[in-house]
Amino acid sequence: MTTVDTPHALVDADKVDRNAARLREHLRALGVPLRLHVKTAKSVEVARRVHDGGPITVSTLAEAEHFADAGYDDILYAVGIAPHKLPRVAALLRRGVTLTVLLDTLVQAEAVARFAADEGLRVPALVEIDCDGHRGGVRPSDPALVAIGRALGGNLAGVLTHAGESYSAFTPEDLRKAAQNERDVAVEAATALRDNGLPCAIVSVGSTPTAHAATDLTGVTEVRAGNYVFFDLVMAGIGVCTVDDLALSVVVTVIGHQPGKNWVLTDGGWMATSRDRGTQAQAVDQGYGLVADDTGVLVPGLLMTGASQEHGVLSTRDGTPVPDLPIGTRLRILPNHACATAAQHDRYQVVSAGAPPTTWSRLRGW
Amino acid sequence: MTTVDTPHALVDADKVDRNAARLREHLRALGVPLRLHVKTAKSVEVARRVHDGGPITVSTLAEAEHFADAGYDDILYAVGIAPHKLPRVAALLRRGVTLTVLLDTLVQAEAVARFAADEGLRVPALVEIDCDGHRGGVRPSDPALVAIGRALGGNLAGVLTHAGESYSAFTPEDLRKAAQNERDVAVEAATALRDNGLPCAIVSVGSTPTAHAATDLTGVTEVRAGNYVFFDLVMAGIGVCTVDDLALSVVVTVIGHQPGKNWVLTDGGWMATSRDRGTQAQAVDQGYGLVADDTGVLVPGLLMTGASQEHGVLSTRDGTPVPDLPIGTRLRILPNHACATAAQHDRYQVVSAGAPPTTWSRLRGW
Repeated sequence: MTTVDTPHALVDADKVDRNAARLREHLRALGVPLRLHVKTAKSVEVARRVHDGGPITVSTLAEAEHFADAGYDDILYAVGIAPHKLPRVAALLRRGVTLTVLLDTLVQAEAVARFAADEGLRVPALVEIDCDGHRGGVRPSDPALVAIGRALGGNLAGVLTHAGESYSAFTPEDLRKAAQNERDVAVEAATALRDNGLPCAIVSVGSTPTAHAATDLTGVTEVRAGNYVFFDLVMAGIGVCTVDDLALSVVVTVIGHQPGKNWVLTDGGWMATSRDRGTQAQAVDQGYGLVADDTGVLVPGLLMTGASQEHGVLSTRDGTPVPDLPIGTRLRILPNHACATAAQHDRYQVVSAGAPPTTWSRLRGW
Repeated sequence: MTTVDTPHALVDADKVDRNAARLREHLRALGVPLRLHVKTAKSVEVARRVHDGGPITVSTLAEAEHFADAGYDDILYAVGIAPHKLPRVAALLRRGVTLTVLLDTLVQAEAVARFAADEGLRVPALVEIDCDGHRGGVRPSDPALVAIGRALGGNLAGVLTHAGESYSAFTPEDLRKAAQNERDVAVEAATALRDNGLPCAIVSVGSTPTAHAATDLTGVTEVRAGNYVFFDLVMAGIGVCTVDDLALSVVVTVIGHQPGKNWVLTDGGWMATSRDRGTQAQAVDQGYGLVADDTGVLVPGLLMTGASQEHGVLSTRDGTPVPDLPIGTRLRILPNHACATAAQHDRYQVVSAGAPPTTWSRLRGW
């Protein structure tokens, strides 16, 4: 329980520790190191707690610069590089940070190679591989892969893939297959480069679902995952975690009732939870989130079904009367998507059974 | 056109001026003053430009404190008051700010009256009236209205209603009816209080759609609107503005192509646009937004159809091939919901035909 004003983001540090230990042990058994994705928490305190000083993945150059300031010196920027961003990359490289970029077109590869030559730098670059049609990347059989690798010259550092479609998996077997496919496609791409006389030191795979579901990562050199530090209802919906594992919530206060509509109104709207409705397409639609009391115990059957900017609407899934929650009652909303909900906040209030409440920072912007 | 890194929020100041002038003239003709809602832009620079020093509405106490620091001294906090927030209200009142609160339950009214008495302050309070079943408020015929008014004692300042359902109106006649209903219900509530010997100095109505559609505001003392400074695709979809009126966009850079899927990939994902899909339920679903070139001219048929955290997917509505948009091309995404998209950014890059580019600030948090 926290005393700061509502709404605010709350992190259960003990659950973060438990989630981190689970993946750490799983990857240790598979013999592959973690490259933590910091885009979910965007917090140096979280990264230090779960992966102190280790290699990280970032989603923005602002994250790269922020974590470099905090001493992280092995950083992968896992969004296709826009050539105009290369001066910011060079500035990090000149600070001694191994800042690796990502790309999937010949235009980008030529721009990186030209920039690197002009600046007298090596700009390590991974080629993005498409393993499931989710977003970007080249297929491992696409001749563009080798052409991109050649164009990169000495900047070529390896390949990367991301099983984004695993977020739509719904059975343990589907998740295992997504993980196997992600690994197989990445290794196939690495082999294609090597068969053409090109180096491929890094074979990077990952997503929170596949990182947990993988059973064989032969040929993979690193696994990326980030959401798992907090987990969320989308992850619980696909079976990667349980609702009890969710480490992030939004603390809100009851500010009204509409008995005729069976509604409880709170001071936490979409500004506090985000507009993310990631469970909408899942077997169980959790609205804007499940509701727990201010100690984290779920209120059975209650969920956040509506959101204005600064108003949340709570009602019951089955239409039974909402419980008696007087004006002023504090509740926790367990979110659909931790990355999106966390992004609505500038800091985390942190609770742990073994320590006094504290605050962790969070970065924003690009 | 701006040169700062992408993605970033861009404001066309000339469109802000035009939107502001339109509502100002409309309300002048109706003879009712504006109480600008600052929750959309959350920017002192925007408020000064369109409504310098005038009465404002806020959605958080953080906004109230921020705008009080900037000299605004007549502020309505238009979210039902949680009693634990009253000390922050008192601090503003003691600074000489007329900070008016909102409530719709007897519990809140008694808490306000008790707090005011204990502190030796008047805490001006409006009773929230439900005009369309959208969210909170009491119906004007509900005996609770008079009971709440009595409980407030000398703190009672008036009534407020918000035609939230007007966002679901789709014809000029529906909008006009929503505006008329909002006015009628507010005046009915004021009359109910006065008929019971209670004062009702303030009769506050408003939403961007109804503010523009109102033709008769007899008995109303102020109109609230905020979204109109920027407008957005939801407002264009219900006919309150045209797409050309949209003053806010997100500038992104092309970072990839997936020709097999007819996709253009950008560096602007939901972190830059928000997850708001407000046009999903409208006649024309605009995805995550329409696409314009870097001078603001719409790219016909192209829209943002997908979003990861830092990736946007652009494709065509009708499946025709996407235009040639090379890596590095800058584009503007016109958003569904200005309030939500602006909230993803910490500042605005501002362009105007008559002035050099500048930056406007934006507030976050609670």
